[in-house]
Amino acid sequence: MIATPAVVAHGENETSTSTSTSTERLPAPDEQTLDRLIAYWNAANYLTVAQIYLRTNPLLREQLTPAHIKPRLLGHWGTSPALNLVYVHLNRLIAETGQDALYVAGPGHGGPALVANTYLEGTYSEIYPRVSADTAGLTRLVAQFSTPGGIPSHVSVPTPGSIHEGGELGYALVHAFGAVFDNPDLLVTAVVGDGEAETGPLEGSWKGISFLNPARDGAVLPILNLNQYKIANPTVLGRRSREQVTAFLHGHGYDTLWVEGDDVREVHRAFAEALADAHHAIRQIQHEARRPDAPPLTATPRWPAIVLRTPKGWTGPHEVDGVRVEGTFRAHQVPLAGVRDNPAHLAQLERWLRSYRPDELFDEDGRLVADLADLAPRGDKRLGATSYANGGRRTVALTIPDWRDYTLPIDPARRGADPYETTRALGELLRDVYRDNPTTFRAFSPDELASNRLGAILDVTDRCLVAPIDPLDDRVSPDGRAMEVLSEHLCQGWLEAYTLTGRHGLFATYEAFAMVSASMLIQHAKWLQEGARLAWREPVPSLNVLLTSTCWRNDHNGFSHQGPGLIDTALSLSGEVVRVWLPPDANSLLSVADHCLRSRDHVNLLVADKQPHLQYLTADEAAEHAARGGSVWDWAGTESELGRSPDVVLAGIGDVPTMEILAAAELLRRFVPSLSVRVVNVIDLMALLRPDLHPHGFSAPLFRALFTDQTDVVVGFHGYRRAVHQLLHGRPNSGRFHVRGFEEQGTTTTPFDMVVRNNVSRYHLARLAVEFARTTAPGSDRLVTHCETQLERHHDYVREHLEDLPEIRDWVWPGATVTPPRD
Amino acid sequence: MIATPAVVAHGENETSTSTSTSTERLPAPDEQTLDRLIAYWNAANYLTVAQIYLRTNPLLREQLTPAHIKPRLLGHWGTSPALNLVYVHLNRLIAETGQDALYVAGPGHGGPALVANTYLEGTYSEIYPRVSADTAGLTRLVAQFSTPGGIPSHVSVPTPGSIHEGGELGYALVHAFGAVFDNPDLLVTAVVGDGEAETGPLEGSWKGISFLNPARDGAVLPILNLNQYKIANPTVLGRRSREQVTAFLHGHGYDTLWVEGDDVREVHRAFAEALADAHHAIRQIQHEARRPDAPPLTATPRWPAIVLRTPKGWTGPHEVDGVRVEGTFRAHQVPLAGVRDNPAHLAQLERWLRSYRPDELFDEDGRLVADLADLAPRGDKRLGATSYANGGRRTVALTIPDWRDYTLPIDPARRGADPYETTRALGELLRDVYRDNPTTFRAFSPDELASNRLGAILDVTDRCLVAPIDPLDDRVSPDGRAMEVLSEHLCQGWLEAYTLTGRHGLFATYEAFAMVSASMLIQHAKWLQEGARLAWREPVPSLNVLLTSTCWRNDHNGFSHQGPGLIDTALSLSGEVVRVWLPPDANSLLSVADHCLRSRDHVNLLVADKQPHLQYLTADEAAEHAARGGSVWDWAGTESELGRSPDVVLAGIGDVPTMEILAAAELLRRFVPSLSVRVVNVIDLMALLRPDLHPHGFSAPLFRALFTDQTDVVVGFHGYRRAVHQLLHGRPNSGRFHVRGFEEQGTTTTPFDMVVRNNVSRYHLARLAVEFARTTAPGSDRLVTHCETQLERHHDYVREHLEDLPEIRDWVWPGATVTPPRD
Repeated sequence: MIATPAVVAHGENETSTSTSTSTERLPAPDEQTLDRLIAYWNAANYLTVAQIYLRTNPLLREQLTPAHIKPRLLGHWGTSPALNLVYVHLNRLIAETGQDALYVAGPGHGGPALVANTYLEGTYSEIYPRVSADTAGLTRLVAQFSTPGGIPSHVSVPTPGSIHEGGELGYALVHAFGAVFDNPDLLVTAVVGDGEAETGPLEGSWKGISFLNPARDGAVLPILNLNQYKIANPTVLGRRSREQVTAFLHGHGYDTLWVEGDDVREVHRAFAEALADAHHAIRQIQHEARRPDAPPLTATPRWPAIVLRTPKGWTGPHEVDGVRVEGTFRAHQVPLAGVRDNPAHLAQLERWLRSYRPDELFDEDGRLVADLADLAPRGDKRLGATSYANGGRRTVALTIPDWRDYTLPIDPARRGADPYETTRALGELLRDVYRDNPTTFRAFSPDELASNRLGAILDVTDRCLVAPIDPLDDRVSPDGRAMEVLSEHLCQGWLEAYTLTGRHGLFATYEAFAMVSASMLIQHAKWLQEGARLAWREPVPSLNVLLTSTCWRNDHNGFSHQGPGLIDTALSLSGEVVRVWLPPDANSLLSVADHCLRSRDHVNLLVADKQPHLQYLTADEAAEHAARGGSVWDWAGTESELGRSPDVVLAGIGDVPTMEILAAAELLRRFVPSLSVRVVNVIDLMALLRPDLHPHGFSAPLFRALFTDQTDVVVGFHGYRRAVHQLLHGRPNSGRFHVRGFEEQGTTTTPFDMVVRNNVSRYHLARLAVEFARTTAPGSDRLVTHCETQLERHHDYVREHLEDLPEIRDWVWPGATVTPPRD
Repeated sequence: MIATPAVVAHGENETSTSTSTSTERLPAPDEQTLDRLIAYWNAANYLTVAQIYLRTNPLLREQLTPAHIKPRLLGHWGTSPALNLVYVHLNRLIAETGQDALYVAGPGHGGPALVANTYLEGTYSEIYPRVSADTAGLTRLVAQFSTPGGIPSHVSVPTPGSIHEGGELGYALVHAFGAVFDNPDLLVTAVVGDGEAETGPLEGSWKGISFLNPARDGAVLPILNLNQYKIANPTVLGRRSREQVTAFLHGHGYDTLWVEGDDVREVHRAFAEALADAHHAIRQIQHEARRPDAPPLTATPRWPAIVLRTPKGWTGPHEVDGVRVEGTFRAHQVPLAGVRDNPAHLAQLERWLRSYRPDELFDEDGRLVADLADLAPRGDKRLGATSYANGGRRTVALTIPDWRDYTLPIDPARRGADPYETTRALGELLRDVYRDNPTTFRAFSPDELASNRLGAILDVTDRCLVAPIDPLDDRVSPDGRAMEVLSEHLCQGWLEAYTLTGRHGLFATYEAFAMVSASMLIQHAKWLQEGARLAWREPVPSLNVLLTSTCWRNDHNGFSHQGPGLIDTALSLSGEVVRVWLPPDANSLLSVADHCLRSRDHVNLLVADKQPHLQYLTADEAAEHAARGGSVWDWAGTESELGRSPDVVLAGIGDVPTMEILAAAELLRRFVPSLSVRVVNVIDLMALLRPDLHPHGFSAPLFRALFTDQTDVVVGFHGYRRAVHQLLHGRPNSGRFHVRGFEEQGTTTTPFDMVVRNNVSRYHLARLAVEFARTTAPGSDRLVTHCETQLERHHDYVREHLEDLPEIRDWVWPGATVTPPRD
């Protein structure tokens, strides 16, 4: 297939990268070093194949028999030789230069390769002592792979040195960039498979260098492995010409170093040169940028990238049963099947394994021979042991100013009297978090920080762009650390890796479009869940997502901009990890945000709209409300005044629904003053779950204290009503909860008038309350008539005046001054 | 900002595209034509601004006063002038050449531009007669924009000529390609904003040309509009050099035509030339490929792309209050704010509006003057009227062979006796659907058709790749129509546009990774919901998604590959649109698939695993089961034999859970023979909803006939248990439903042993059944002990033998031959 000799060549468009043989450049390996690199690679390849096939006899000290083979053969061979090649050469680079490095394996289904290498370098046995550096440990190593009670077949949480799960493809590069922001000493080598390179998120990730400042950030070295095939198909990039791939990377801002071939020695030689060149170029860029007298950056530096074009399943079976395997899609998973039942395949497997000469690689006790073991770096410099991949070890708690200093003064006598943009107060807190944590906190947003009222951040740091800056730009510079890029995938992925390497952050985004990266959030939650079970993985800062520009207040954008679905996505994930907060006002948002920024190992969704909203709680009340998860707002109901248990409970969850619940309560008070009404607010959505299902779940007595056991509850909820339904299952008489929330309206009209059009409307809620109240109190009929009239009036009014009825637009909580209806 | 003169130039890397002045090339416009094009453009720009600002006085026949201005100003001016420019020149191209064309507006928040143009060409008034082509209609046109009861501010379902919603960015190009597959006469012009160009899905979409066969498909002309700014930030591509952008597009396979500048006349002249060149190049590629003696394609043709570099908010206010606006991010939305209260702004708005000279553009009655109206194409050639954008008009029902011809023969006496790969039968049906509908059906999958047991399709068509083909490739060719690309975004987006333009298809994907494109599915469902309300939009083929490689059987991949969350996402969407099917076996999958392929305007999720599963239903039974949505499987329970109402109901939903429910039923029959057990199966998940919430909802009597009113129900469910909880809310005594489903396990072990480890395990389910049964029947204790013993045995067995216990691995439904326990 690939018969060209190995070459290293700079891309056709290569321009500025220095490749002079400065003293810093890693010299080319001599022949003896090359021998040892190849032998080390053979050991890694050997252990890769052994993991896929063997359940015992790991060093072939006995002749291979069917009993040595696993009953089911599962794993991915095709990508593994290239992953091993990169690992071995990185080992040398690190050992020789002391470079701090992290390895991101995009083709993460090549798990056995990474496991093999972390075993060979010693990290694996240190973390998992049962898998010791001897024959017994080797036996466990091969037996555990892809078997019950063992390890999954891809790079995953239990893999030492990994911050990147190899399952859902597309995030290798975005994770690499997230890891190096504010980590100036770190080099992340990110192997990108040409399969993964077809995904949208990966294609979108190349632009990371436009946000990478060599003065303060580390470096990413992408290695695009063109092995030409996926599971069944050729890859798109694998079939492009060299000239075109070079132009592609050049267009993305990279200078390409090519390594191509299938001659083992020549490819190793060429790769060593390419890696040395790339590393040297990176160091040069950093050196220039970090000089004390360095001028400001005025363009994106041209970073190096390597294209490694080697056969899929390289060194594996060339043909099986007369059909070509090596270098084709047939090498993707397990090239030799049915090994237990097919003696010819068994013999071919044995030849394949022995081709790596295990007897020369491992000593009598099953240890890697010392001469090879010496090639690996030492201690925490090892790729499997680096603290960068176990970010909890590097985490420094944020310096967070007292959130109470940012709260609004609320006079309990004038609750709900004045509107304020809820997220603006958070922006002020975040401004000072930025200021006080200049290298360990970043906010990420798709071009929306200011729009989301978090613009105070820009008082202390610019928006980041490492590119030519125009005088017309507003607070944009290469030194900025506010991360704005029009890609939810990049925002989410950068933050994931930023936190997994021990730093803190927040992703602020449009609620509806948060679903764009929902699958990433799911995978990250799974990672955290898994990581919490591994004692050696120390807790990392939580992933905080602020959903704003919510479904209730997006003015003119219509249905495509309305969607609270990320709440539903989060609800199904592990209760150990996921938290969903719906603060009703600014002070409660501040309290929750403070909690989330200090938390570890969680995914925190915070849902709070950016528009002006009424404000209710004092700082103390907000803190208590958030800690409890939900409270009775006695000041809003009539229960205490009337001195009897409620006829109906009104519950608000979320900012807009809370206002509507309060407005409904006011209607009830005005029209049906003898009705005993309790008003409840829930801020912690997961608290609705039974405590056996979520650690925040309201205890049975607390649930009863909020909602009683029997009384009907009218719920105004921010999201889809079924999200609440599912949480209430198994609570006493859950059918008495009448939830109204956001509904897919499918209407062409703009949502101006949603205050009445939607299901959390005060008029709808008030009507429901009298419908489901225990008693029919005097005034109920008048209330129903009033609500219907208002709904009609409003419908007509907004069409004539193009804005809400004044009594809706200007409504505030009237406090103790509620007057009876005049009519 | 941009001061360069307008130029048209071919990109630096341009190589093969012919630009010879053949007779087919549209000639350059003469000066008079250029005058008219610019005047038409002025009319479009005028109406764009008028929509954003005015509620009346649409032609400024009176001096502008605050009363003419909307109370809230909402909309996007910045992108609109470029959208209008493209539209006007496309009009000329269509009118002169008769080209069938569709306009995809990536910067779709520029809605007023598209509305303005469809109004000017007459389509809008034909579809919405109230918005007539006169002053009264113009008044309604401006008043309706972004106001209650009116239209949203972006290109959306009600916009004539659109198949693309302008809300969630990233899908302009993928929709363009999906539209032209198998539409050889169609040219889709896709404007890509440089903001959208930052998204991962958009970056991933450029590769569409690697799947575009000029012999049978139409063409896409991307127009990258580099206006340099997003809401607040510069764009990444906007700050790259011309050389780099050209290399970027060259690397993607395009030859770039540049149009740059801010001189109106020169840009118009240059754009006319570029469009003519691009069109000519496209026609040449198609002409070559469509010659009877054309050789097979051996490479991706080099298609043209245009880069249009014009100022953001071009022709709008250059400065406002001394601050530069035109050509900056400040022009993004509404450049002049507070117009009602600020006389200077009001005056500036009036000057701006009058700068387009409305009096010269519209006649006394408010009609576009005839000389300009003549520039637009006629009839269905108009971009707003093309049937391609109203795909129901083009839809031809699929020829579908009788699905019963593909069913498995099931002997009712031997139900559940033999395993079969459920999706394989579907593959055979799809093979013949492909064969019988050679231009109107395609299946899309991320490299997994064969892996998903749909490989029969490849007997009648190759996998598509328009690139060099290697002899080692397996059934890959430029003529193939099986669409495999490692991108859920591309699969989903291509299928969306393929169906919106009136063709049929299926997206088959890994269940867990279906979440990657979940947000697209949401947006598509919203589109269909909205479209169904518009009488002029005719129903289009449904979007069918087959979720396979499900969470229960993925062998070695671990937690990242397990996730049934798309069900939860779908449940919240409109019941008018969404259907979720969980066929328990192959025959029921065939019946459901037949239904889905014939359906219109739905999003159908089909969840069926590819691995071998037991088979239960005859074809007739499967058809009835699917039609009812759920049935009692009398043969599996003891209710009839014992002749009394059930003590407990077991319900299975999904293939694996159904098997486990049956195995639990067998355990109950063996150990507790006197217990009356009913076994129910549900295939249509939405049927669990009350009928007032979903059209498929079981009526109250039917629900009672399946589940009784009081008896406890043990449910084995495919997905997260809370998905069922939410559907049952409001059903009688919903708390009696004990649902066990997939749970986030967060374990490093592989899921081999999930049959016992997970919550739908037969042993767990059987234990639950005796726990919740009305009576404690003899044998219950022995059953519980047996279950506990088996769970322990299995745990140990799988770790020793690396596979399931034989009685679990080989379990089949024993039919009438159940024997009592021996111990």
